[in-house]
Amino acid sequence: MNSQNECLGRRIRVALVGGGGDGFIGKVHAIASTMDRRAELVAGALSSNPETARTSAVAMGIGKERGYESFEALIAGELACDESERIDLVAIATPNHTHYPFASAALKAGFHVVCDKPLTTKLTDAEALASEVHTTGKILALTHNYSGYPLIRQARAMVASGEIGDVIAVRVEYLQGWKQLQTTGTPKRGAWKSNPELAGPAGTMADVGTHAFHLARYVTCFQPERLTCHMRQFCDESLDDYGLVTLSGAGGPLMSVCVSQVSHGRLNDLRIDVDGTKGAISWRQEEPNSLIVRRQGQPLQVYERHPAAEHMHDAERSACRIPPGHPEAFYEAFANIYCGVYDDIVSLAASRPLQQNYPTVQDGVEGVKFIERCVQSAAADAEWVEF
Amino acid sequence: MNSQNECLGRRIRVALVGGGGDGFIGKVHAIASTMDRRAELVAGALSSNPETARTSAVAMGIGKERGYESFEALIAGELACDESERIDLVAIATPNHTHYPFASAALKAGFHVVCDKPLTTKLTDAEALASEVHTTGKILALTHNYSGYPLIRQARAMVASGEIGDVIAVRVEYLQGWKQLQTTGTPKRGAWKSNPELAGPAGTMADVGTHAFHLARYVTCFQPERLTCHMRQFCDESLDDYGLVTLSGAGGPLMSVCVSQVSHGRLNDLRIDVDGTKGAISWRQEEPNSLIVRRQGQPLQVYERHPAAEHMHDAERSACRIPPGHPEAFYEAFANIYCGVYDDIVSLAASRPLQQNYPTVQDGVEGVKFIERCVQSAAADAEWVEF
Amino acid sequence: MNSQNECLGRRIRVALVGGGGDGFIGKVHAIASTMDRRAELVAGALSSNPETARTSAVAMGIGKERGYESFEALIAGELACDESERIDLVAIATPNHTHYPFASAALKAGFHVVCDKPLTTKLTDAEALASEVHTTGKILALTHNYSGYPLIRQARAMVASGEIGDVIAVRVEYLQGWKQLQTTGTPKRGAWKSNPELAGPAGTMADVGTHAFHLARYVTCFQPERLTCHMRQFCDESLDDYGLVTLSGAGGPLMSVCVSQVSHGRLNDLRIDVDGTKGAISWRQEEPNSLIVRRQGQPLQVYERHPAAEHMHDAERSACRIPPGHPEAFYEAFANIYCGVYDDIVSLAASRPLQQNYPTVQDGVEGVKFIERCVQSAAADAEWVEF
Amino acid sequence: MNSQNECLGRRIRVALVGGGGDGFIGKVHAIASTMDRRAELVAGALSSNPETARTSAVAMGIGKERGYESFEALIAGELACDESERIDLVAIATPNHTHYPFASAALKAGFHVVCDKPLTTKLTDAEALASEVHTTGKILALTHNYSGYPLIRQARAMVASGEIGDVIAVRVEYLQGWKQLQTTGTPKRGAWKSNPELAGPAGTMADVGTHAFHLARYVTCFQPERLTCHMRQFCDESLDDYGLVTLSGAGGPLMSVCVSQVSHGRLNDLRIDVDGTKGAISWRQEEPNSLIVRRQGQPLQVYERHPAAEHMHDAERSACRIPPGHPEAFYEAFANIYCGVYDDIVSLAASRPLQQNYPTVQDGVEGVKFIERCVQSAAADAEWVEF
Repeated sequence: MNSQNECLGRRIRVALVGGGGDGFIGKVHAIASTMDRRAELVAGALSSNPETARTSAVAMGIGKERGYESFEALIAGELACDESERIDLVAIATPNHTHYPFASAALKAGFHVVCDKPLTTKLTDAEALASEVHTTGKILALTHNYSGYPLIRQARAMVASGEIGDVIAVRVEYLQGWKQLQTTGTPKRGAWKSNPELAGPAGTMADVGTHAFHLARYVTCFQPERLTCHMRQFCDESLDDYGLVTLSGAGGPLMSVCVSQVSHGRLNDLRIDVDGTKGAISWRQEEPNSLIVRRQGQPLQVYERHPAAEHMHDAERSACRIPPGHPEAFYEAFANIYCGVYDDIVSLAASRPLQQNYPTVQDGVEGVKFIERCVQSAAADAEWVEF
Repeated sequence: MNSQNECLGRRIRVALVGGGGDGFIGKVHAIASTMDRRAELVAGALSSNPETARTSAVAMGIGKERGYESFEALIAGELACDESERIDLVAIATPNHTHYPFASAALKAGFHVVCDKPLTTKLTDAEALASEVHTTGKILALTHNYSGYPLIRQARAMVASGEIGDVIAVRVEYLQGWKQLQTTGTPKRGAWKSNPELAGPAGTMADVGTHAFHLARYVTCFQPERLTCHMRQFCDESLDDYGLVTLSGAGGPLMSVCVSQVSHGRLNDLRIDVDGTKGAISWRQEEPNSLIVRRQGQPLQVYERHPAAEHMHDAERSACRIPPGHPEAFYEAFANIYCGVYDDIVSLAASRPLQQNYPTVQDGVEGVKFIERCVQSAAADAEWVEF
Repeated sequence: MNSQNECLGRRIRVALVGGGGDGFIGKVHAIASTMDRRAELVAGALSSNPETARTSAVAMGIGKERGYESFEALIAGELACDESERIDLVAIATPNHTHYPFASAALKAGFHVVCDKPLTTKLTDAEALASEVHTTGKILALTHNYSGYPLIRQARAMVASGEIGDVIAVRVEYLQGWKQLQTTGTPKRGAWKSNPELAGPAGTMADVGTHAFHLARYVTCFQPERLTCHMRQFCDESLDDYGLVTLSGAGGPLMSVCVSQVSHGRLNDLRIDVDGTKGAISWRQEEPNSLIVRRQGQPLQVYERHPAAEHMHDAERSACRIPPGHPEAFYEAFANIYCGVYDDIVSLAASRPLQQNYPTVQDGVEGVKFIERCVQSAAADAEWVEF
Repeated sequence: MNSQNECLGRRIRVALVGGGGDGFIGKVHAIASTMDRRAELVAGALSSNPETARTSAVAMGIGKERGYESFEALIAGELACDESERIDLVAIATPNHTHYPFASAALKAGFHVVCDKPLTTKLTDAEALASEVHTTGKILALTHNYSGYPLIRQARAMVASGEIGDVIAVRVEYLQGWKQLQTTGTPKRGAWKSNPELAGPAGTMADVGTHAFHLARYVTCFQPERLTCHMRQFCDESLDDYGLVTLSGAGGPLMSVCVSQVSHGRLNDLRIDVDGTKGAISWRQEEPNSLIVRRQGQPLQVYERHPAAEHMHDAERSACRIPPGHPEAFYEAFANIYCGVYDDIVSLAASRPLQQNYPTVQDGVEGVKFIERCVQSAAADAEWVEF
């Protein structure tokens, strides 16, 4: 966390789109984007409702002038700003169907983009966006925020360095329960997530499945060749709320993904197990400061988040803010995604090569492809679909 | 554990087949069958090697006369014994391919049978055995010993009584790692398990997959309609050592089974998660004294093994020997299977109906069917196979 | 986290003293004080070394003009600022011996104070400071940050509302290991903590013991009447690094405190168990999103951090930022202390009564008294000392 | 577990005293003493009530003739038996006040003794018994059964071999909750444990405190020089139900012991932490198959029970019956104590030196001394008492 904005000589200016309603993710963007004090939130179009957009902007400390009533007004207003005040980056925290038009317009207007997942609701849109990122030379990062956890970066580095040998099997599970008994003890949230017009062709498989799939790819660099998928609608009337995916990878490894939003009492239970030829690693999002490392015949090891220990890779170290035992969690991981983006904004300013230490538009394309392939397989009674 | 042999007025006499070599399961039978002091081990054919059979019998305290040199000699010898000394029951702890001939011969000789899983190496044999059990009126129990754990009995009772509503999804995972680096820190065991002649058509899917499948059926009464299966051979040259099965059940529920014997550092990691419409339960064999119960919006509950607590069902209570906090484990669960058998031997003596509080020959048939269907699906590139 | 600075109409302006060196706590103040976007860090005297102070200020984004070379320069400079830019609050993150002079001077200059623990190195200084807080009418908060965790606030509310009955016994343990093998894998930190001139009369008992003592008092409102204390110096040549304290409370309850900085592999292992006549609660800082609630004869309950569940008190709810399962941790808890301070700054501006939802100067006095009494008892061979 | 009764050429014959009532420990003796098939339970005086004694004997399969109506009848009857049938060993599972007279009489009658803890209710009796063991040359083992757990034996071997360096601090905690709300969900048990006439001068400190103290001594060979003790009676009207002891050891180490039978929801929560100069170990009875090993700056290690792994000592290996991951628990540990006794009975028969791989009469003397010193210190307001 020591890398700073040195070449830039100033804080990065962020605009937030969405986040004015009941959803929590907009507020996460507001805090995470600014928590390391490398950026400030200076503008926003916080709701599709103009009144909510205005009042939310004041509540969020953005102020009246730059609390725009619509995304379009935000883009127009910022382009009209003096360059010394104009935003650098648009953070998109709105329902899925708006990701493509908003991200595309932001890039074309010359802004970097941080966008919620999935990237788009259609693969063709995702591919178009990838092309626009290339053309505009702007940065687009996707908030697969779980890849921002220090120990996930450690896991990736361990796999990459061969510490667990070749990956043979990956198991990812992402379980939530909020679609059960929504009235008891949990706030009604994410109603749009069950509306195909807004969410796209999948429900749970898109909402949490893409996180699980990205996490597994991030840690292991697994290259899927084909998949089969089972989907169920146990509670949700419009879209899937439970699913099982099996992916076969290049060279033989097998990945299984299980997603649910109907598992009673599961909060945000994302887990990953990676089996390699020399060792295995396990991690669970709800206890993110521990990584379990197993080697046959040896004691099980618990790697605790630690910015200084010798058994840690630099990738882990640079994602830590505080000493071990002082737990870092969701916000800090989310902020690590933003830090990667800021590093690259500084790199651009300094004409240095990009590091892309964040989920890219290409990761977004893979995620949308995952959704479409899953839907296609599930519709064909779990038939194999090429990836 | 209070039920005794009262109507019988004596201990039950057990013969053990197998258990003289390096394998551990024979010794488990020896201890578990006698631990509640309702039975004594009086005879054995402990090895296919006559010399080993003799010396093992002495070491196990069976004595020379009834330490037979072969299964056949055991049956003949016991039939020649006076009825007041003759065995009641044959415990079969030998490689899979012998289960059918041994069990069949034991039944026909008039002995009850406790047999290791899987029941047989062929479905037709299993069905034949089921028929022989019916014809002979003898008891046959299969050592799906994990169903003997008190909290698994509690889980089954909770599902049966509707405490978690209708079952919608089941996830079972059974992970071991001993096929990795067999030379480091783990004894070479179960070589026959990789030999299709001895083990049958599947490796890991038979060895631990049938346990996982039985456990899930035991807890949930899930009725599979069809399945798809992926198998891999990451380490084993002859048979599968990793597998994924998806089962679709009558009425819509989905079961996923993952089995491995190539996951570094996993010892005997059998877990089950059951999602119901009103709640969910989770259990892990390596911490068998806790059952996790989740209900959306409420605190997570840990039911600890407890013979007296009000939230426990009789099925759990009667499987406990000691107060909570004094952990009971593998042997005690295994012995609970034997207790169920002894209860029914007493019932037979008293002309009372059987309770069948143990895995039956019919469970064995389902297990062998599971293996055959998995092999069939895996061979057909994970095609659906009717169950 | 919804309460805002509404009556103030602007962000609160913070100056940080200390934090420019290797220590981590200054950076924690910088992030935590601003993470909810209710305040900005506008000035600092970040090191006792003028050069470090200057460069650190630039690195922290404070800028040259208000990156003062000394505490005295900070106070003088800020008093010379226009009121519209002047700081509201001084955050003191320097070695213990400076707490009293710096806090006292800041209060007298008209600034609110957030100060690291322990409050002072002498009880008389602590009492003087309490008097100065009263006289000046300014706010002083002590960063006993562990009381900012949502589930600790839940625990306190549960005790206060009688949910676990009368408290009979409290056990607090705060274990670290960094004084062992400081060269292996851990950064050399806190050298001043072993220097009585800078740290005061106790080492570990002051550094972590006061946290443990405050946490126990915070949760239970335990009123100590007398204590006995054992101290050891296993590694540290100057001050205690291991200690045991037994406190006897008004009405009979017993509290035991164990502190260590010589326990291999313990990172920041603060735990509390509270036994009441109707129930018991347990919490561990390294897994801060769970609170264990036990009642005899009932299932153990795990209360997971949850801003909406019915079993949660408002005190917990208002300390949460995101939904359950998305872990919040050290920074967020630390920021909650700042939020309490900001709420009271707003209250002062609005002439409303203070809420004091943070550790106060009086808590600081109790902490310093705890240190002095422990040292006194330990010196007298663990004799009883009146509290 | 491979050691057998080879030199003896027969099973050892055991008589059980006590165990016919509601208490569970008699049944534990019955199972544990015979589970490895090295002994048989052939006689008993199972209750002080003659009728209960008779019926219990039948229920336990002992039979009428040797189901004696009193301890005295047992001794007389067995002495009258032919030597080829006579018992070798008396297992005493009766209230504390009978331990001395029964053990003494059994030794003098020429029988070995396995006795429940504490050894006696008076130190002078304990010392007398030690002298009688010496004089008679018989074996006396005390059922500090927790020292029978494989990983506790591993812990002891690790300490002894210097793997964690010199021991500096030990923390033992033994928490139960059954004296709270005895009517809800827990069976009324151990009423005699609150009666000083039967239990001796201490309640919880004797009942579980001696276990905790023995465990700590067993693992660390800690030599106490003096102690201070606080006792409370939160629920129990006659004897202590909560206590804190601090022991200072030869050479500087510090041990703290906390015992409770009034902590809601704690079942049998015995834990030990040992801090050494090179490492630290932690173990918890309710999860007995894991031992945590910590070294500063290195990953935390979990040693799972494992009869074959290289990081295990022989002492652990020889206490295991089955492969790792197949949990062994309370009964198996208890049986390990008996196995140690049987090994020494065989050694006596073979004129080999005793191994004393079980808690001895000297451990019993230390335990009773611990109780008396604790009571003495607590009565003197936690004054130091020489050990």
